Amino acid sequence: MKFQPRLFSDPQLNPATEDGWRRRWFDIIYRHDTPPSRNFDLVLVLAILASVIVIMLDSVQSFHARHAGVLYALEWAFTLLFTAEYVLRLATVRRPLRYAVSIWGIIDLLSILPTYLSVLVPGAQSLLVVRILRILRLFRILKLTQYVEESGQLVGALWRSRRKIFVFICAVLTLVVIFGALMYVVEGPEHGFTSIPTSMYWAIVTMATVGFGDIAPQTTAGRAITSVLILIGYSIIAVPTGIYTAELASSLREASHERGHLDRRGCPECGLEGHDPDALHCRHCGTRLPAPIG
Amino acid sequence: MKFQPRLFSDPQLNPATEDGWRRRWFDIIYRHDTPPSRNFDLVLVLAILASVIVIMLDSVQSFHARHAGVLYALEWAFTLLFTAEYVLRLATVRRPLRYAVSIWGIIDLLSILPTYLSVLVPGAQSLLVVRILRILRLFRILKLTQYVEESGQLVGALWRSRRKIFVFICAVLTLVVIFGALMYVVEGPEHGFTSIPTSMYWAIVTMATVGFGDIAPQTTAGRAITSVLILIGYSIIAVPTGIYTAELASSLREASHERGHLDRRGCPECGLEGHDPDALHCRHCGTRLPAPIG
Amino acid sequence: MKFQPRLFSDPQLNPATEDGWRRRWFDIIYRHDTPPSRNFDLVLVLAILASVIVIMLDSVQSFHARHAGVLYALEWAFTLLFTAEYVLRLATVRRPLRYAVSIWGIIDLLSILPTYLSVLVPGAQSLLVVRILRILRLFRILKLTQYVEESGQLVGALWRSRRKIFVFICAVLTLVVIFGALMYVVEGPEHGFTSIPTSMYWAIVTMATVGFGDIAPQTTAGRAITSVLILIGYSIIAVPTGIYTAELASSLREASHERGHLDRRGCPECGLEGHDPDALHCRHCGTRLPAPIG
Amino acid sequence: MKFQPRLFSDPQLNPATEDGWRRRWFDIIYRHDTPPSRNFDLVLVLAILASVIVIMLDSVQSFHARHAGVLYALEWAFTLLFTAEYVLRLATVRRPLRYAVSIWGIIDLLSILPTYLSVLVPGAQSLLVVRILRILRLFRILKLTQYVEESGQLVGALWRSRRKIFVFICAVLTLVVIFGALMYVVEGPEHGFTSIPTSMYWAIVTMATVGFGDIAPQTTAGRAITSVLILIGYSIIAVPTGIYTAELASSLREASHERGHLDRRGCPECGLEGHDPDALHCRHCGTRLPAPIG
Repeated sequence: MKFQPRLFSDPQLNPATEDGWRRRWFDIIYRHDTPPSRNFDLVLVLAILASVIVIMLDSVQSFHARHAGVLYALEWAFTLLFTAEYVLRLATVRRPLRYAVSIWGIIDLLSILPTYLSVLVPGAQSLLVVRILRILRLFRILKLTQYVEESGQLVGALWRSRRKIFVFICAVLTLVVIFGALMYVVEGPEHGFTSIPTSMYWAIVTMATVGFGDIAPQTTAGRAITSVLILIGYSIIAVPTGIYTAELASSLREASHERGHLDRRGCPECGLEGHDPDALHCRHCGTRLPAPIG
Repeated sequence: MKFQPRLFSDPQLNPATEDGWRRRWFDIIYRHDTPPSRNFDLVLVLAILASVIVIMLDSVQSFHARHAGVLYALEWAFTLLFTAEYVLRLATVRRPLRYAVSIWGIIDLLSILPTYLSVLVPGAQSLLVVRILRILRLFRILKLTQYVEESGQLVGALWRSRRKIFVFICAVLTLVVIFGALMYVVEGPEHGFTSIPTSMYWAIVTMATVGFGDIAPQTTAGRAITSVLILIGYSIIAVPTGIYTAELASSLREASHERGHLDRRGCPECGLEGHDPDALHCRHCGTRLPAPIG
Repeated sequence: MKFQPRLFSDPQLNPATEDGWRRRWFDIIYRHDTPPSRNFDLVLVLAILASVIVIMLDSVQSFHARHAGVLYALEWAFTLLFTAEYVLRLATVRRPLRYAVSIWGIIDLLSILPTYLSVLVPGAQSLLVVRILRILRLFRILKLTQYVEESGQLVGALWRSRRKIFVFICAVLTLVVIFGALMYVVEGPEHGFTSIPTSMYWAIVTMATVGFGDIAPQTTAGRAITSVLILIGYSIIAVPTGIYTAELASSLREASHERGHLDRRGCPECGLEGHDPDALHCRHCGTRLPAPIG
Repeated sequence: MKFQPRLFSDPQLNPATEDGWRRRWFDIIYRHDTPPSRNFDLVLVLAILASVIVIMLDSVQSFHARHAGVLYALEWAFTLLFTAEYVLRLATVRRPLRYAVSIWGIIDLLSILPTYLSVLVPGAQSLLVVRILRILRLFRILKLTQYVEESGQLVGALWRSRRKIFVFICAVLTLVVIFGALMYVVEGPEHGFTSIPTSMYWAIVTMATVGFGDIAPQTTAGRAITSVLILIGYSIIAVPTGIYTAELASSLREASHERGHLDRRGCPECGLEGHDPDALHCRHCGTRLPAPIG
């Protein structure tokens, strides 16, 4: 059974009417294969990117000080634009509720809400960057290209190795709890290991070889335990890579196998299978083969 | 020969009696396939998780200051609960000593001892997090699901590559000793490399690409040596991944081979099985085989 | 279709004349298979390396203070040498413009310009290290050896996995934007997360397990989010390795397949080649094939 | 052609005489298959480990202060012991010079020289840790076990991928030079990038995801360049792993292939090859096969 990346395909939405402006807008918004809908998609992607950049610039102190007014106006402009698009989407679809509770509907809502919230709660507008998730629609625009197959392979291999990865994450978390508590006892609050959760944060940072250095062992015993933890993490980092690579390699092999040996004809004389798709005669007994089926 | 992850299977324990309350409790505690025993397992896992969370919260200064009394009471409650369970396990099994010295019996004991110890030695209760190891029983509860097969594959591949990993760890430790001493000579105590063991700790932290930065080279020669060490570590990190991936891929391939090419035809003359899918005659006695089924 | 690493092959350049000194110099500069041209290549590579080392030493304060005059003179000497070579290359080739706009022509120009610029803009000479790119010509000198095939395999596998890597980079950047904004909101400017771009820089540093530690989370919520980000990054680091390894393994397998199973028999009747090693009859016309040779 | 890890095999040394005490000592020192020689090997390995531990402890300030006399005595004792062994090795072998210039002879000499040197140059005794290299003799002791085959596979795969790794290291070093110079120009000495070599050290530390944090970018442009460098390094880390894994997987596959399909018999009737080693009849036409050859 092949994994179907449903996230990148539209939910089964139908136009609200068979005719009229709502039908026309439905085609523009939800389809991706006509010139007007392609232009709409392009404008949408550019607007999303521009809006995210505005939010980023707004968070830079020096930029905010000089251009606060412009940035504020742009933010509201983008929010109104996306609100209009959201309303239009609800209006043109036959079952608006189904769209509203779909994953894309929720993302669309989340990407306009914070601006309205910021009137009440200052600072909420930074959460607008959730808009960047809307960029994933890009994959739907590229639907006809090869990118979907590629990302389908990647996500599919992740999906098939999910149980192995779950087992692995459990093992890592168990190690993190044990080593976190051990370091809390050995190093203690005076060396930065102020509590078991803090020590667990340190253990994750260390095992994953990030190593910020904001907390670091200072006693000999602590350093010895750290060395052991690092060596374990170093050996264990191979496991997810191994899982994923083995899974991906086997799916690539199967894909090339399917392409290469799609011929299901058996020889009418000797029964041999596995002929080349362009073979006319059995390679063993020379009998004429039937025409390829697949 | 396939690796059997014995850790996740119960030791061969038998009930103390054939009948009575001890028999009933044995079934509840040691079996995992009846409704009462499933409920017992669920309660146990939740109690373990709750108890570990209590220990973690107790280590947070601000939390401890406000809720010291409640946390103290909860800790003793969980300890008494687990003590009761431990005694029950000993009482219902035919050979209590065999359970007591098994790996699970020792973990069960270690997860209650620190509370009693903490009366004498303050601070010992942090060691209670060893209780988290009891959560591994979870795997026994899930025994019938696919997780055991998956973790069996992962552990099996680790097990088959144990000799290669041992050789690799030896090579890493040799490099650590050499480079640690070299840096101790080159950088010296004034730059943080206070002793050879400290330098070795730094070498492990550096080779495994953790890089805390609490100790860092400051002379030109030290930095040049560090660059060489990093490049070696960078090339060498591929080795455990390579070992593990190759081993896992070959075991996955064999598994799919077994599934895919299991020709179920038996020879009508001598009964031999395991023929190639394209075989027309028995490879042992030469009798004509029937047409493949699958 | 096989990837051809065109970067390492000369553009199709022809000598300006059939005879005379320009023809002789063209052979020396652009060919790599005669003794004079080999000597020229060797001198060139040594001059490039020496010149880069001079630039490096010049940037070391203590060295610059003592030997400023010598280093200055050497820098101009190398620049004049490379300028002479550049003019010679333009003069001996039939279509100088084509060489000037080729990637090699641009690198050659960039590696002499900064010295002349430094008369106007002090400090520009550090950009001279772009000269190191000229060392890639080394690969052309080694053209006849096996290195080109090896690097061709490496680059080819990268090239075939470019779409998967693009999808992966997109996923990473989306995560970086989301987590960067989240940490900006949670930790805020007082803990070093001064703006969303700064937080994104931190998120990249953390996900890639570099972990400088110049910025590090200090609140409990920030550390929890960091732990999640690290675990995601830790699982995700497997993906590019998996992509690349699977691609490289499949290309190595194909290469060994081509070498191993190259059945060289042609059909005596229709001349078709490329039969399976165990084929007895031509798969096209059914004629009996001769016994395999290799 | 298979790679032979010659490092782990003794050079072709012959005893100095056919009889007498030198012959007896030669057997004890250079052979590994008689009880006395096994005891000698064991004592030697223990002495090496003990001597390395003494050197390590001696470098710890607090330990040195209290036990300086004992450690000094032990150090000289081990040095005299190893000197005696070195002289004995020279004396019992027929061609002492050949042993003296072999890699093992040089290591043996280097592991006693620093003690004598320390009389003249204080502090030289830290270099004694080179003694740890002698522990590699351990592999010769384990010669008859499977470890040699395992490390042979690991080293063999490294050896076959040496050209690819060389190409990779060249690419990394080119990137390091370019980005090092770029950061020197962008960040400058006031942010810790004091010279191009220092910047190159930083670039190596960053690309390999070590990230000490002793030097870190502080300008926006510097952080943007760092992000690019990290993303490149993150993608590139896959390359050595990919090279090594693919090579190791293909060598493991070949090894299992060799074991599985060693049967080179062809059917006398139809010529089919690739029979199971235990097959008595051709699986295609049922003709009796000749007895296996290999």
